[in-house]
Amino acid sequence: MFFGSGLRQLYRGLYPPIRRTTRPISGSLSRSLVLSSQRRTPEFSSFVARTNTCGELRTSHIGQEVTLCGWIQYRRQNIFLILRDCHGLVQVVIPQDELAASVKKILCEAPMESVVKVSGTVISRPPGQENPKMPTGEIEIKVKTAELLNACKKLPFEIKDFVKKTEALRLQYRYLDLRSFRMQYNLRLRSQMVMKMREYLCNLHGFVDIETPTLFKKTPGGAKEFLVPSREPGKFYSLPQSPQQFKQLLMVGGLDRYFQVARCYRDEGSRPDRQPEFTQIDIEMSFVDQTGIQRLIEGLLQYSWPADKHPVAIPFPSMTFAEALATYGTDKPDIRFRMKIVDISYVFRNTEMRFLQEVLAEPQGTVKAICVQEGAKYLKRQDIEFLRKFAAEHFNQEVLPLCLKANRNWNSPFAKFIMEEERLELVRLMEIQDEDMVLLTAGEHKKACSLLGKLRLECADLLEMRGMILRDPALFSFLWVVDFPLFLPKEESPTELESAHHPFTAPHPSDIHLLYTEPEKVRGQHYDLVLNGSEIGGGSIRIHDAELQRYILATLLKEDVKLLSHLLQALDYGAPPHGGIALGLDRLICLVTGAPTIRDVIAFPKSYRGHDLMSNAPDSVLPEELKPYHIQVSWPTDSEEEEALNQPHLPKS
Amino acid sequence: MFFGSGLRQLYRGLYPPIRRTTRPISGSLSRSLVLSSQRRTPEFSSFVARTNTCGELRTSHIGQEVTLCGWIQYRRQNIFLILRDCHGLVQVVIPQDELAASVKKILCEAPMESVVKVSGTVISRPPGQENPKMPTGEIEIKVKTAELLNACKKLPFEIKDFVKKTEALRLQYRYLDLRSFRMQYNLRLRSQMVMKMREYLCNLHGFVDIETPTLFKKTPGGAKEFLVPSREPGKFYSLPQSPQQFKQLLMVGGLDRYFQVARCYRDEGSRPDRQPEFTQIDIEMSFVDQTGIQRLIEGLLQYSWPADKHPVAIPFPSMTFAEALATYGTDKPDIRFRMKIVDISYVFRNTEMRFLQEVLAEPQGTVKAICVQEGAKYLKRQDIEFLRKFAAEHFNQEVLPLCLKANRNWNSPFAKFIMEEERLELVRLMEIQDEDMVLLTAGEHKKACSLLGKLRLECADLLEMRGMILRDPALFSFLWVVDFPLFLPKEESPTELESAHHPFTAPHPSDIHLLYTEPEKVRGQHYDLVLNGSEIGGGSIRIHDAELQRYILATLLKEDVKLLSHLLQALDYGAPPHGGIALGLDRLICLVTGAPTIRDVIAFPKSYRGHDLMSNAPDSVLPEELKPYHIQVSWPTDSEEEEALNQPHLPKS
Repeated sequence: MFFGSGLRQLYRGLYPPIRRTTRPISGSLSRSLVLSSQRRTPEFSSFVARTNTCGELRTSHIGQEVTLCGWIQYRRQNIFLILRDCHGLVQVVIPQDELAASVKKILCEAPMESVVKVSGTVISRPPGQENPKMPTGEIEIKVKTAELLNACKKLPFEIKDFVKKTEALRLQYRYLDLRSFRMQYNLRLRSQMVMKMREYLCNLHGFVDIETPTLFKKTPGGAKEFLVPSREPGKFYSLPQSPQQFKQLLMVGGLDRYFQVARCYRDEGSRPDRQPEFTQIDIEMSFVDQTGIQRLIEGLLQYSWPADKHPVAIPFPSMTFAEALATYGTDKPDIRFRMKIVDISYVFRNTEMRFLQEVLAEPQGTVKAICVQEGAKYLKRQDIEFLRKFAAEHFNQEVLPLCLKANRNWNSPFAKFIMEEERLELVRLMEIQDEDMVLLTAGEHKKACSLLGKLRLECADLLEMRGMILRDPALFSFLWVVDFPLFLPKEESPTELESAHHPFTAPHPSDIHLLYTEPEKVRGQHYDLVLNGSEIGGGSIRIHDAELQRYILATLLKEDVKLLSHLLQALDYGAPPHGGIALGLDRLICLVTGAPTIRDVIAFPKSYRGHDLMSNAPDSVLPEELKPYHIQVSWPTDSEEEEALNQPHLPKS
Repeated sequence: MFFGSGLRQLYRGLYPPIRRTTRPISGSLSRSLVLSSQRRTPEFSSFVARTNTCGELRTSHIGQEVTLCGWIQYRRQNIFLILRDCHGLVQVVIPQDELAASVKKILCEAPMESVVKVSGTVISRPPGQENPKMPTGEIEIKVKTAELLNACKKLPFEIKDFVKKTEALRLQYRYLDLRSFRMQYNLRLRSQMVMKMREYLCNLHGFVDIETPTLFKKTPGGAKEFLVPSREPGKFYSLPQSPQQFKQLLMVGGLDRYFQVARCYRDEGSRPDRQPEFTQIDIEMSFVDQTGIQRLIEGLLQYSWPADKHPVAIPFPSMTFAEALATYGTDKPDIRFRMKIVDISYVFRNTEMRFLQEVLAEPQGTVKAICVQEGAKYLKRQDIEFLRKFAAEHFNQEVLPLCLKANRNWNSPFAKFIMEEERLELVRLMEIQDEDMVLLTAGEHKKACSLLGKLRLECADLLEMRGMILRDPALFSFLWVVDFPLFLPKEESPTELESAHHPFTAPHPSDIHLLYTEPEKVRGQHYDLVLNGSEIGGGSIRIHDAELQRYILATLLKEDVKLLSHLLQALDYGAPPHGGIALGLDRLICLVTGAPTIRDVIAFPKSYRGHDLMSNAPDSVLPEELKPYHIQVSWPTDSEEEEALNQPHLPKS
């Protein structure tokens, strides 16, 4: 995209002209749309030395005296100069007459990317010299005065979008990388979208923006919390992973509609596409149920959605966790494409295939399959090999590729064992077309679903590499996933339970009796919001009954309730029923902008090892700087260090 | 103030009815006012179980079926119940007939502060039973159904504003304290005012809201930064005191209008009315000068100022640092009242008083005085004693009280040495009235001014205790203080220099040549914003020239430039001229709301020892929790501990 046109589109979308209504909106949002349609573009040049931005000048400005400030993007034969600011590019004509020799000298001698201020007149370009690809391509600036504001030294890379740089280099010189169109667009869109969210919450629905502390106490089980030493020996603050306790306490405090764009912290060592600090849109309400939160969030996203993107349809579809697992093999299905998992066990009730017989004889045994559209046409032999190897390595499962209508049953010695009535039933059930390929697996329900869920995504990748469009990046498919189990067996000790999400989630009202008999069967009032196969938010109705909360914490989860005594006490003092949600802002903006990683929607991200490559943080400190905090470094022994370096989660500079 | 009426006033002020213009506003702000005057009150009951808030019901609602959720504030003879939510109080009539026995039972048996949901009809109160003091006093609710949502146990204190509690108790049960009218008002006003600031910056003036990291690298000289251990042995992040470096790097990155409501951290041990984490409105612009920033901030404050407060007049007056010191004895003068410091040295050029002769013979010697209005009438003998003792103890200075028109020269053996022409000159010069009292001191300029500046505030306290109104708390007097020195002599080593504010402040253009000859005389392009005698903001035009920045850091300040190499490098790569400001949000909201401490405008503040009294943070952690961070506690020895406990800045549980 040409620099400038995209930003203009962004701002035009965000501040549409009066009476412009881009799309029909019904219900309570109509008022908000009226409000936003009355907006004008902000004044980008108030209070500063320029009269206009480089990118905004058009033929309507012809004849105006303007002052512009910007960076020298390009110079042609000492006659033209392209000046850039964050709103776009404009052509400046370098004066050639003797009287303007000093102006010419400044503009011709300044290195690329130097900052200059020029004053002059907006004039029409001579006929035939217009540049229709450039938003300012019909005009140019006839310069009268010029001032070099700051000369630029030789750069580590050119500030041009087509010049490819490694991410490490971009992060080291982040302040230069930020000059790119892509980063300008991403950060401005983020700012605008958050602003619209605030308007929706604060101005339209009476939410109160409340800042909660980040220096807090360690949460029980909060293994991923950064510690902050205090000046009291042995006492530490902790940087919380979310304002969960505070938002609930605000409800007890009668601040019944809370939101915060909250900074959260999570120390996971190094993880690709995660950040040690991240931002969530944090929301909590009193007297609300699951539907209330869902309608609120749908309205929020629709209201704040950038007008230059494909619009969002509400209400979002909803699916139970069980259905998501059975149909898509995951709790965050990408519903932009089908390729659903189908249980085909009953088709094989009379099968002669030994291994299917054996699986179906098991109490949990199932046969399942996905139909890969045009798989027979597009998937190559080595793709099938890759998928079967993937299944074997990650799931210890066998996968059978079957082409049941076409005639290409490579690599499937089993195809001949499928009886004709089975084949016909499968074709009918799975709506198999000529060029499709079926991937079949057999095994325990959850394992078979998970495997096929992964293969579904792998197949989509493969088909898209071959040119099919399964997941249109311009489409935004939201989905609620609900009715999660409240507890899961602990991984390290499966007879014990742990919270599927967190211990404050309220049980499903119709399952409460099961808490005392079969707690593993209790569903929680938890809901996840999924966008295009990524989880972008989650929340729940919370427990507001102190006794119930104590029972779950102490009896079922065996947690030390003393660490949460303040919260339990708060529930005893007239806590209202309440619930909430948190949206992961970085991930959401990443999906909206189509950025390849969340690092591209954050101004100063850490590397995946948790480093700031620009300033070299974290860094060593002097022993005397540790003294006020009563801590000292325990230097690892050589063997420990070696071990540590071999662990993938331990960063190494 | 009656619960509810104040909040209504707040929201009415913030969302005035259509076409209402409360005060004339000129210039570029008129558009913004049009925008805000078109607003309606937000929908406070969307998405939840209630149809209305308790506080909003009026005679216009009579006949409507409503559902309310709230806390039981009060019950009278099992006939009436006062229900409270965060919008106010409403009277509920408990049904007495047999058919509604279950409803009656619920409403009569629920303990105070229990949460209930009631449905019924809004009816007019019987004639004579209206309560004109209560905003909902003309109506009541005839209940049909009631539900106990949560019963309340015995509370540690009553949720009534007139019930006095210690601050420690309030902080321990913060979630209950938040139910008070005062805290609800303060937090809602804070939220609304910040929202208006965002509208002004983002929607009207094209600023981009950018989140900057809080896990960063230690700043050179950043002795007050909390450390955060990383998983790399001996490597620490640091929680920065402000986004100073990032905002400057954003300017280099071409994001030329940045703002952020930024969380900042400062570890000062315990300090009254300071918080280890606090919030600032952080702003930076490219191509701007001092005046540009000042006009921006004046517009920002006027636009966001609550409509229920005395309006703000712009532009704000401005004063140089030298003038502020000479006239008010401080760099943050409270200009709501006069009592200015007057240099009366020349009056005593021929004095016979030996000690004045001696002071005036010194090269820096001055005689200065303030005229305390009606001081002779209101100040008592012990007040004068207190003031003289204060001067002796804190400044080692003598202060002479003189009543030059009335006849009460107690305690001033010097009065008789004042010659008649001196007396007349002083009366003329200081505009002394009959009941006034002059406080005179003699000494070096800065010391004399500082002393009189303090005495001026002490006198104001004393006079106000006697009933005079000098500093109207409803008035808001903003003041810019400018032309600060760029450097100050280091306290511990006065031949060396340190930055008066920070090392990135640009020198005054007309003083640049002095940098190389008499740097202590250079003024900085720094500006402070003062409100009613409190500093609520400060900023500067920054250095954008790498060479100048290097010279100041390395040669003048003797800092290790390696720690800032990324910033110096950034300045070399086409950094635009830029400047900015930060407003202390907590202090500003404190002054606007008239709260006695900033803890009253923060939802969950720390105690002055840095403790969260509710959750008991900071807290001990297990040694194995420290292990991933390669640190261990250095437990102090008994003698160290004793010493530590005796130091005032070290907190003690």
